[in-house]
Amino acid sequence: MNILYKSEPERGRLWAERLKTLLPEATFRQWPDVGDPTKIDYLVAWQPPENLSDFTALKVLFSVGAGAEQFDYAALPPELPVVRMIEPGLTSGMVEYVTFAVLGLHREMPRYFQQQREKNWLAHASLPAARRRVGVMGVGKLGEAVLQPLLQLGFDCAGWSRTPKNIPGVASFVGEAQLGAFLARSDILICLLPLTAATENILNADLFSQLPPGASLVHAGRGKQLNHQHLLNALESGQLAAAVVDVTSPEPLPADHAFWRHPAIWLTPHIASQAQPESALTALLENIRRFERGEPMHGLVERERGY
Amino acid sequence: MNILYKSEPERGRLWAERLKTLLPEATFRQWPDVGDPTKIDYLVAWQPPENLSDFTALKVLFSVGAGAEQFDYAALPPELPVVRMIEPGLTSGMVEYVTFAVLGLHREMPRYFQQQREKNWLAHASLPAARRRVGVMGVGKLGEAVLQPLLQLGFDCAGWSRTPKNIPGVASFVGEAQLGAFLARSDILICLLPLTAATENILNADLFSQLPPGASLVHAGRGKQLNHQHLLNALESGQLAAAVVDVTSPEPLPADHAFWRHPAIWLTPHIASQAQPESALTALLENIRRFERGEPMHGLVERERGY
Repeated sequence: MNILYKSEPERGRLWAERLKTLLPEATFRQWPDVGDPTKIDYLVAWQPPENLSDFTALKVLFSVGAGAEQFDYAALPPELPVVRMIEPGLTSGMVEYVTFAVLGLHREMPRYFQQQREKNWLAHASLPAARRRVGVMGVGKLGEAVLQPLLQLGFDCAGWSRTPKNIPGVASFVGEAQLGAFLARSDILICLLPLTAATENILNADLFSQLPPGASLVHAGRGKQLNHQHLLNALESGQLAAAVVDVTSPEPLPADHAFWRHPAIWLTPHIASQAQPESALTALLENIRRFERGEPMHGLVERERGY
Repeated sequence: MNILYKSEPERGRLWAERLKTLLPEATFRQWPDVGDPTKIDYLVAWQPPENLSDFTALKVLFSVGAGAEQFDYAALPPELPVVRMIEPGLTSGMVEYVTFAVLGLHREMPRYFQQQREKNWLAHASLPAARRRVGVMGVGKLGEAVLQPLLQLGFDCAGWSRTPKNIPGVASFVGEAQLGAFLARSDILICLLPLTAATENILNADLFSQLPPGASLVHAGRGKQLNHQHLLNALESGQLAAAVVDVTSPEPLPADHAFWRHPAIWLTPHIASQAQPESALTALLENIRRFERGEPMHGLVERERGY
């Protein structure tokens, strides 16, 4: 079995080392050390090599990330299975990030941090979590995981998704028809949507205007879902109070971009959910085993749906 | 029944309004409208009036805060029961604040926010929560409550207290003898201790030096427990990576204090735990009922112990 890895070299070295004990019969090659491309069975990458057509024996393309929308599907062999990464480290990373962001917005930390810069010692009344309405856009595996600590902390939680979800304690809003009602009750809006034609640019002025005045945003979906100028306008008008933004388009942002220096924006460099080397390798090997036994893999992309 | 309230006027007005329905037989007076001081049964205050000796019928002094160390006990009648505030709003506020701070330190958010100021888009590898050792100093009601979400998020948790605690999943370290072992395994140290002679200035260079290098601090105890210069030195040397500080001495900090502008310090104006008007009133009335029935009140201060 030949695995080609083309991503962060540091993680690649760690995986190479661990595979020696976990799967000694595998040959693990790290890009650009491809060897004979016709011998590669599995490719693990954020982007495939440009000469992908030389990889004539390729069985599966594994994304190293939770998403697989970065691939140019028109350039991939139509029958090649594409699999995105589903592993507990990615999930717990997102849970940590969103819990941090929601608590920070709930407790008005961007305002307090601005006061710190202004040397202003001033307390504001706080609201019980039960009176803070949190709305999660995109209630897949990640969304469902993120909702658990928020429920336990006492927030008033809802989710918005294509199909109805039955999560105890979480109001379920479905599809375009219920988007307005969902937004109208979301003091803190969390975007975890996959990137599709329907979600591109979804975080725009029209959507922001349907939130309660002074709402705030956690964006940990994909960069192309957020209209940057509309976010700046909504913060300027006070329609939004603050935003925590982990993904942008482009990434990285150019040096003159307004997000870098905006006092009401917390900007992080796409780190909400990072695959943990150890648990990601375990998940990859489990999927290879499943493929070789003819069992369904976790995270197999439905190309028509786009995720 | 005559209650005198001497604290934030806004909360006082809210309490006055609600008491009309909850306890119509009570007379609720708000400082400085004392009326006849010899008629006051219960005093609710952060600091008592200077003419406390005129309040000859006073039955109980209730602190509006979770602590009661602000009182000058030598100036209080020796037999006057002093009660600190124990109410779910105070607890949930502290749980929110500490969870926010621990997640922020765990995910290196002070470093990312500094990068944002420097317009530097750079991701760092993150650690699973299970490999982050969190240590809570002071495992009373607040400490125990704070540990719950940290356990659920997967952190490796320990507590340090005067007496052994049996909290499932939390290693218990007891007293002076086990402080060193507790500190040596605390990557994120949380101070929730009450202020006593034994805890004053406890967060000092000697204590910081016993933490793992690069550890961080959440200080939500009392201001006088933290040696400011020693914290600055520990951050300067790298012994500490970052600190989240909610309490200082004095409060507010003077304008020229180094904490305001330190990139590795998140400073908040003593807002970690704020009594929520509604639940605090409920807790107060429950204690008055208990006192009148001769039952033990929640939060009765043991003067010798100091809390």
